Amino acid sequence: MEVQLSTIEAREYMPGYLGKMVHGQNMTLAFWEVTRGAVVPEHSHVNEQIMQVLEGEFELTVDGVAKTYKAGDLVLIPPHCPHSGKAITHCRLMDAFSPVREAYT
Amino acid sequence: MEVQLSTIEAREYMPGYLGKMVHGQNMTLAFWEVTRGAVVPEHSHVNEQIMQVLEGEFELTVDGVAKTYKAGDLVLIPPHCPHSGKAITHCRLMDAFSPVREAYT
Repeated sequence: MEVQLSTIEAREYMPGYLGKMVHGQNMTLAFWEVTRGAVVPEHSHVNEQIMQVLEGEFELTVDGVAKTYKAGDLVLIPPHCPHSGKAITHCRLMDAFSPVREAYT
Repeated sequence: MEVQLSTIEAREYMPGYLGKMVHGQNMTLAFWEVTRGAVVPEHSHVNEQIMQVLEGEFELTVDGVAKTYKAGDLVLIPPHCPHSGKAITHCRLMDAFSPVREAYT
């Protein structure tokens, strides 16, 4: 199965978070366009998550520790680990989740 | 756990395929720099694979069907599905694997 990023419909899954989802059998790739200042409240989930900053700066708080990440930075968030985020600038992010992120299907 | 792509040591996992690996618990992200003309012979594995072309053109043959992909294209390769590839131009690819791609650890 193949898909072009340009043809996936973006949805605003949270205020300021426009996402394009690619779901496989074992994992989900999420491509985000994030408005400056937009916040993800603290949450956790069964899925392991690897976040990659593609463009801009994003503050991620993992297990209570906040840090700002920029293009080329990757953060591994273990299953069930509480995390939250805030876009310091407009940014583009990619998240990989495993297993599939059911909340975004 | 965090990591910067620029600080991961690249290894030539196959001739012409310089890869940087990010291994989690449930998945692996592989960032490839591929020399023009470099070939991956047909193979298959238990891991689901999602390939994304980041730059250049890459010919992927999945289950006997060859097609050329370019930046923004994503291909989902199911577990155990035979596939092979060839770099039409110099290219950059990202592969996501789940479960972890043990062969690259």
